[in-house]
Order: sequence, then structure tokens, then C-alpha cells
Amino acid sequence: MNNQSLASFANEHKKLLEEQLRKAIKDIEAPTIMKEAMLYSLEAGGKRIRPLLLFATLHAFGQASQKGLNTAAAIEMLHTYSLIHDDLPSMDNDDLRRGKPTSHKVFGEAFAILAGNALLTYSFQLIAATPEQFASSHIKLELIIEFAKAAGAEGMVGGQAADLEGEGKALTKEELEYIHVHKTGKLLIYSVLAGALLAGADKATIDKLTRYAYHLGLAFQIRDDILDLEGSEELIGKPIGSDMNNQKSTYPSLLTMEGAKQELAGHIHKAKLALKETILYTSLLQDIADLVADRNH
Amino acid sequence: MNNQSLASFANEHKKLLEEQLRKAIKDIEAPTIMKEAMLYSLEAGGKRIRPLLLFATLHAFGQASQKGLNTAAAIEMLHTYSLIHDDLPSMDNDDLRRGKPTSHKVFGEAFAILAGNALLTYSFQLIAATPEQFASSHIKLELIIEFAKAAGAEGMVGGQAADLEGEGKALTKEELEYIHVHKTGKLLIYSVLAGALLAGADKATIDKLTRYAYHLGLAFQIRDDILDLEGSEELIGKPIGSDMNNQKSTYPSLLTMEGAKQELAGHIHKAKLALKETILYTSLLQDIADLVADRNH
Repeated sequence: MNNQSLASFANEHKKLLEEQLRKAIKDIEAPTIMKEAMLYSLEAGGKRIRPLLLFATLHAFGQASQKGLNTAAAIEMLHTYSLIHDDLPSMDNDDLRRGKPTSHKVFGEAFAILAGNALLTYSFQLIAATPEQFASSHIKLELIIEFAKAAGAEGMVGGQAADLEGEGKALTKEELEYIHVHKTGKLLIYSVLAGALLAGADKATIDKLTRYAYHLGLAFQIRDDILDLEGSEELIGKPIGSDMNNQKSTYPSLLTMEGAKQELAGHIHKAKLALKETILYTSLLQDIADLVADRNH
Repeated sequence: MNNQSLASFANEHKKLLEEQLRKAIKDIEAPTIMKEAMLYSLEAGGKRIRPLLLFATLHAFGQASQKGLNTAAAIEMLHTYSLIHDDLPSMDNDDLRRGKPTSHKVFGEAFAILAGNALLTYSFQLIAATPEQFASSHIKLELIIEFAKAAGAEGMVGGQAADLEGEGKALTKEELEYIHVHKTGKLLIYSVLAGALLAGADKATIDKLTRYAYHLGLAFQIRDDILDLEGSEELIGKPIGSDMNNQKSTYPSLLTMEGAKQELAGHIHKAKLALKETILYTSLLQDIADLVADRNH
């Protein structure tokens, strides 16, 4: 096992992933505008943190990245669909995403909804089509069931619904955490879980890794809330203070900025502890935790 | 094999399906409004023609309906999500569906979009969770891949996109057919295909059955267009002439009403011919073709 730096690992795997995404869309037989809308949002950049988590998990087991390529692409497609729909006028009504016009601004609302639906649908197809040598049929079905749970009413979509319901209300920390664990946490957890399932991990190891991802997910969200107040508009690609202006409950608004930073540090600490309990080669996963804690966009 | 009438078979299986749908939603752990919105549209009635096709196909092979219960529920969930999204203000902007207020009228646009997304996501989970005794892992993956193709950019969503692109334009018969084959045909074909896959059919038989479903799907759509002009507003649950008012290309507008009726009869004839080429017990599938040709809602 080589001691590759996270930066070069991330860079290399971002290329691998983006090539896979382009290839997947190219292969689809569909109206041109459909494929354009799907690709536009897939290529809008982003940190590709979820695929990176999957690849880093495979790496922790000493397993080849190729094994997780289909599932990583599926996760990124799912994440992209959720952004397209989140930005819609009836949802967050955002005109910009990562500094680029949002899907409905470019293609209109109807095509934005359809592009999201097509990405969501295709993500399942990609997992199911993982080559036989990388995953047994049994593992693929497990990947699909867990993916649906993480993505659907029990996961991300449920979190989006709770988020909408909570708009304009003063939330408790528990309510805020429910939203984040579901809206963003479940898919981050799934990214690590998928790597572990593909690597044939035992139940105890899976529990430790998903605990890592759980705390990482909360840390990720707290950092997001902090960046919304303290970040650089240029780097995060949206106006500073938009949560406050939208009267959104955030960690800083509930715990003060100092309290939010302590909470963030606590989750990073717990995430790393969970990794230390495993016998895996977790340096990249550790580095991802540091990256999440310190990221400026 | 008993010689059950289509009416009693349809009635019995409608109950079986609706029980399965209610049970599936009840089992989900999600915000209450999410589950209410999912169930509202699932229980809005409808002919349940797609699940019926699946069950009738299993019946043609002399196989138990239980085998197809998860997939049938998945198909109905997928169909329901497509109706919720089709009715949205940015799509067809319909206030009524089967005489009841549409999802966004009851729950608001954002929750309607989310309810659709949750149904779409859950439909994959349902197929993957088909009990082992009813389908091998290999068959389940085949069911999932074909389902995604029928539902996504290469199928239904692609048809919806082509439909949107064609709005207000005078379409050729080929363009109109592309829309219908994708927007409604692919899922009808899948319903029959899924039954055949679950029954372990050989390739030649699958080809004949999907040919049946292809013609049935076009017949279904032509009958829809005819009903929009000649139907009873009370029975079809929406205003008569809405296609014409929306300047939609239809079979009657392209072929005259007489021509559309001939085209319908031709597809029903071809659908039945395809069935006759099989050695299956196809009386129910034959009856479904007659039902589609003569339906008044």
C-alpha cells in the first residue's frame, strides 16, 4: 500500500470519475436536450467528495478503485439530481450554483425536473450494471437497497421534506440534526458503506466506518453553516449570509459561532476515533476528515 | 389453469396490489407529510393497467401472482410519480387528475416534487427486495436494469422531454409515435417483460410478448386521444378537448378521427397476432387488448 497524499489521490480519482460520468451520458440514447441538461449539471464542478469517500474506503481495504467506479458515478449522479431539484423555484429558488447558472435557468423548469429524474433513474442502472468481476449479484442488490434507503423518503428526500417543513421556524438542535443527517448525512454514509460492501467488510468494521461517516457528515454541514457566515463569496460561489437572510436555522444561530466551531471539532474527533478502532489503512479517510474541517468552499 | 374472466382477475389483483402499496408506504420511516403525499397519489384510483399486465403475463405462464407483487407495486409507484410530475405547473399544469385535486394543489409544488422523487426511488428498492424464493439475484438485477431503461432518459423521461419539445409544433406521425412509445409505451412493455422475466421465459417468447405490449401501448395512446374528443368528461375526469386547446398533436389531428380508429384497430390486431404465436395461455392478455380498444375512461 503506497502512502499517497490525499491531494494526488483526489485529483487522480476525480479524473477517473468524470471520465466515467461523461461516458455514461454519452452512451444514453435520448433527446439531445435531455443529455445536455444531464451533462451540464454533472460537469458543473464540485468537490466530488462522495465518490472520493468511496474510493478512499476501497483504498483502506487495499482494493482497486475500478471496483467502485459504477457506484461512485451513481452517487455523484444522485447528488447532482438533488442539487438540480433543490435549486428549483419551488424549492430554494437559486439562480447560481458554484458560480454557474442553475439548471432551470439554462434549460427551463420542466427540463430541469426531467434532467434530475433521469439522473436519479440512471444511477440505479449504473450500480446494477457493475461488471460481474467487481461485485456479485448479491452485493449489487445490497448496494441498490442501501442506495435507495439513503436517497429516498427514509434518507435524503425525507431530509429535504423536513427541511421545507422547518423553513421560517426556530428549530431545536435535534430537529436541525435530523434534517442534516438525512438531507446530506445519509449519502455521505452510503459512500463509505458502499466501499465497505464492495470490499467485503464484516459487520463490525462496517459499523465503525459508518460511525466515521456519520460524524463526518455532521462536521461537513456545520462547516457549511460557518462558511455561509465567514466564507468568501468568490470561493463558495453564492452570496454570504444567505441562510440568515432566508431565516434558516443553522449551527451558529443555535450554538453561537464559537459553539458551532467546538461542535465541529468534536465531530471530527469522533470520526477519527472510529477509524482508529479499525485495522484498516485509513490515512486518506483521516485526511478527508481534516479537509472537511478546514475547507474554505 | 382456470378460465377466469378478466373482470374478476383484475378486481382481485387490484386489491392485492393496493394492499401491497399501502403496506409499502406504511413501512417507511419518514416525515408524515411525505408519506401522506406518497399515499395520496397512489390511492387516487386509476385502472392499474400496468400491474394487471404483469399479473396477466405471469398467469399466461401458469405462475403465481405473488412472484410479481413487488415489481407490480414498483411499476405503479413509478407510474404515479410520473403523473405527479406531469401535472406540475411547469409541465402540464393540471389541477385535476381522475377528478381529484393534483398533488401540488394539495401539498404544494415542493412536496409534490419530493413525493414523486420518493416514489421513484422506492420503486427500485421494492424490486431489489423481492423475496429470494420468487426471483434469483440475477433476475432481480435484470428487472432493475430494464426498469431503469424503461423509466429513464431512454424511456419514459426521454418521452416526456420529447413531448415538451414538441409542444405547439405540428408533429409528424413518426415524431408523435416516438413520444408515445417512450412516454407511455416503454412502461407498458416493461410490465409484460417483467412478468416474462419472472416466469423464466426464453428470448423468442419474450420477443413475441414485448411485440404484443408495443402494439397495445400505441393502441392505448390512440384510444386516449380519441377519448379526449369523444369521451365523457365525467368518466375520464378531465375536460373534453384539452389536447386541442393545448395545441397538442394527436392521432385524430394527424390522421382524422376515422383514420385514428383504423390505426387503433390495426394495433389491436397486431397485438393479438403476437400472442397467438406463443404457446402460452393468453386469454387474459387478449381480453386486455379488447379492454384497451373499447375503454371509455
